[in-house]
Amino acid sequence: MQSKPNQQWRLAKRPVGLITESDFEWHEEAIPDLMQNQVLVRIIYLSLDPAMRGWLMDRKSYIPPVAIGEVMRSITIGEVAESRHADFKPGDIVQGLLGWQSWAVTDGSAVTRLPKAAIPDLKAFPGVLSMVGPTAYFGLLDVGTPKKGETLVVSAAAGAVGSIAGQIGKIKGCRVVGIAGSEEKRRWITETLGFDAAINYKTEAVGEQLRVHCPKGIDIYFDNVGGTILDQVLARINVYGRIVVCGLISQYNATEPVPGPYNFSTILTQRVRVQGFVFPDYLDRVHEAVKDLKKWLAQGKIQYRVHVVEGLEKAPQAVNMLFDGSNQGKLIIQVSEEPSL
Amino acid sequence: MQSKPNQQWRLAKRPVGLITESDFEWHEEAIPDLMQNQVLVRIIYLSLDPAMRGWLMDRKSYIPPVAIGEVMRSITIGEVAESRHADFKPGDIVQGLLGWQSWAVTDGSAVTRLPKAAIPDLKAFPGVLSMVGPTAYFGLLDVGTPKKGETLVVSAAAGAVGSIAGQIGKIKGCRVVGIAGSEEKRRWITETLGFDAAINYKTEAVGEQLRVHCPKGIDIYFDNVGGTILDQVLARINVYGRIVVCGLISQYNATEPVPGPYNFSTILTQRVRVQGFVFPDYLDRVHEAVKDLKKWLAQGKIQYRVHVVEGLEKAPQAVNMLFDGSNQGKLIIQVSEEPSL
Repeated sequence: MQSKPNQQWRLAKRPVGLITESDFEWHEEAIPDLMQNQVLVRIIYLSLDPAMRGWLMDRKSYIPPVAIGEVMRSITIGEVAESRHADFKPGDIVQGLLGWQSWAVTDGSAVTRLPKAAIPDLKAFPGVLSMVGPTAYFGLLDVGTPKKGETLVVSAAAGAVGSIAGQIGKIKGCRVVGIAGSEEKRRWITETLGFDAAINYKTEAVGEQLRVHCPKGIDIYFDNVGGTILDQVLARINVYGRIVVCGLISQYNATEPVPGPYNFSTILTQRVRVQGFVFPDYLDRVHEAVKDLKKWLAQGKIQYRVHVVEGLEKAPQAVNMLFDGSNQGKLIIQVSEEPSL
Repeated sequence: MQSKPNQQWRLAKRPVGLITESDFEWHEEAIPDLMQNQVLVRIIYLSLDPAMRGWLMDRKSYIPPVAIGEVMRSITIGEVAESRHADFKPGDIVQGLLGWQSWAVTDGSAVTRLPKAAIPDLKAFPGVLSMVGPTAYFGLLDVGTPKKGETLVVSAAAGAVGSIAGQIGKIKGCRVVGIAGSEEKRRWITETLGFDAAINYKTEAVGEQLRVHCPKGIDIYFDNVGGTILDQVLARINVYGRIVVCGLISQYNATEPVPGPYNFSTILTQRVRVQGFVFPDYLDRVHEAVKDLKKWLAQGKIQYRVHVVEGLEKAPQAVNMLFDGSNQGKLIIQVSEEPSL
């Protein structure tokens, strides 16, 4: 038994529009004793991802919605505090979908042990290796099928997934143009990450800038946002272009029906492939991505940055940073201290 | 020299909305003498296709727009009247993009000779073998990738391409549900063509009927129309569903921007592939389609019907039948008499 109680954010009601703190209930409860095959995990980091907004909607999707009364779902990194499972011992670093809470009592099968020798930086897991990097990897390579010399456009390009997708595009020999929402982000993706060009959609005419920066048209669009930017891209898409539908951030908080792209007919005239994908479909191949991503990290070909918000209590407010773009890099909540590894 | 002049419909101006006769100019001119490697073709049938509306728009597409002053483009079947080309002799039956005219003087390379022994019925070419059948064939098999037991929905299902796509779906073991615009068409595709079910979109609630007739959801949608029906299908699309974008008849005559599907987000949540294609991209593989289509025609597994409008002068009016759905089967103009083969 831990002396501190477990603190949790539980879903109280389904948000309408942007998430508010009142959509969740702050709950404290004693940590129960472990049963056989269970582990107690002290949660260190929670990953905040745009997809979470979808998990709160009561609709058919790739994953059931979070139920009312349930601890909010998120990917977490933690340290095993106690174990009654043969595969885990105190001090092990694990990841799993343990949610918005400070401690988790869970079946050992619900978490994966991260070998300490292979951990360069604990934040590399939420930042790249857990979900973000494999999402960018399979989305770009499997769905986008880039070829050397093609032009790749990435939206939310300074975001967690977009920044990795663009860097993988560079590794594969594409011309990469990013779309982001601030001058700081524009500089980061061109000067630090090596994108060929970047467009600030808040201050520039996206269509015009796409014409300038994509003189040979657009072959692949790695789309995290949907909406009007998708329309601007479709207006300049090349024959046999691919649209990788990774996210639709611009419409997750919509309270009215959102029309699809007005340039939909371009899908026919330019013979475009528009394809949606989600990370969980690639779970059995995630090792392929992790192997390459680790290599590229070690070679300095992929860089990432993590935006840390301290304190579990900040989670409901912090998640909206993903929708107003005020985060700089992969957004995570630090729930407790990192151990020294 | 022929004694009769050549009669032509030439494009006078770009239509706004539905095509009108005043968008074309009726032109008569003498038929010139043949030069070396040219043939004179007496045109028998013109194919009228929804895609023609797109050919009249001044925009980037898979084929340049018909120029102002140019003879309106169409697929034609005709008989060689005179030849100064080694590969053709008078009496040969040929097809090509000879356009809305009664005679055509053309380079031999612009037409293909149809071997008479292989012609069961001259109308089988516009009806199935020229463009319509291969379009359905490659669209369904290459883009739609049907598997036995899957549910296929086809719009404009009593139309030329849709009726063949649905029948190929049946041959491949799919449950096939057609959407058409009259009771007569609904009966024809179920009772004569063997579709499993049909929906009359003019008198029935399409979404509700899709739920009734597609109890296992929709795996493939062969879309000829776009618009609200596409939205209804997306609302019921299965995981890994495919949308074959063959046509967007509902919006070809639009004079205002048309929004894309409101259920666009389903492409992400259900990991749908939406893919446009056009017949000309498959020209080098058309023999594959023709081989199978001829076999299925001979076996009675594919049936077609042809709606003949007599007289070249009717072409501009008749083409709108494709948009109000008043044609029954493949729409063709008979320009002159069939020879006895």
